[in-house]
Amino acid sequence: MDILLNAANAALHLAHDLRRDVEVGLLLLGPPHPPRFVRLEGFRLRNYQPDIRSNAALVRRALVDASRIERESSPGVFGSQANFDEALDRFGPAFVYAKESGKDIRQASLPADATFVFSDNEDLATTEEQALTERGALVVGLGPLALHTDHAIAILQNELDRRRV
Amino acid sequence: MDILLNAANAALHLAHDLRRDVEVGLLLLGPPHPPRFVRLEGFRLRNYQPDIRSNAALVRRALVDASRIERESSPGVFGSQANFDEALDRFGPAFVYAKESGKDIRQASLPADATFVFSDNEDLATTEEQALTERGALVVGLGPLALHTDHAIAILQNELDRRRV
Repeated sequence: MDILLNAANAALHLAHDLRRDVEVGLLLLGPPHPPRFVRLEGFRLRNYQPDIRSNAALVRRALVDASRIERESSPGVFGSQANFDEALDRFGPAFVYAKESGKDIRQASLPADATFVFSDNEDLATTEEQALTERGALVVGLGPLALHTDHAIAILQNELDRRRV
Repeated sequence: MDILLNAANAALHLAHDLRRDVEVGLLLLGPPHPPRFVRLEGFRLRNYQPDIRSNAALVRRALVDASRIERESSPGVFGSQANFDEALDRFGPAFVYAKESGKDIRQASLPADATFVFSDNEDLATTEEQALTERGALVVGLGPLALHTDHAIAILQNELDRRRV
């Protein structure tokens, strides 16, 4: 859970505000009730802190009694049941998959309004990579060393920030 | 404390190892017993986790009964009393100060074996900036938006990783 919450922080937090144009999807495939999918909408979030302990409570509330129909358990926090393929399709193309062997992001042409896909501390399964390939995902690398997910996301956001200036 | 521990994680952690060539200095100027200085040596650390809760215990132990003489409270974790100037001088030049208005790091010529200085969620005080200026610090910016310290450090490490390849 901490890995996901740190990743969400890197995607959403600026020093003194949230990135209101960011949506985050957290896919929980571990016990007790997989698959669970939590979606965070930056422009609707309230009370979303840099402190992952308080965010954990918000995310846990979204996991309770989740059904296939998405439900907003607190402002900007949506819980549902969805597997990997379904989670991808709720965000929709264009997909960009961050993987060490990918094309260097500084040289990559990135689609506008993309869905960026990161694994946690384990690589994606072969079937999950296939789902991305079938959806035409661009594969990008962020640097020469394998990093924690939250640090990789911070580097991605920096690259996007620089292109938007 | 969480800000410092997240910053230390960004400086030290790779996906599956620690950056053994990194030293981290955490300066605690808040109550109850300022100033406290904790130094982490990547190549000596044991049991240093991605989970900041377990690292908090290591750092807290280094804060107990700190004197001006540095003491290793657990492998690779050193506690002492030191103010901002003293903390700088324990690491020594060359200094690089990360600040939003600085020269873009991608264009900056960076010294080998530098000491990189980051503030927490508040900017450095004027006297602290003066201490850096007196020591000839290069001022670099990491991107167009103000970020949390840990995310800024992840971006710095990525830039250094790319130059070392």
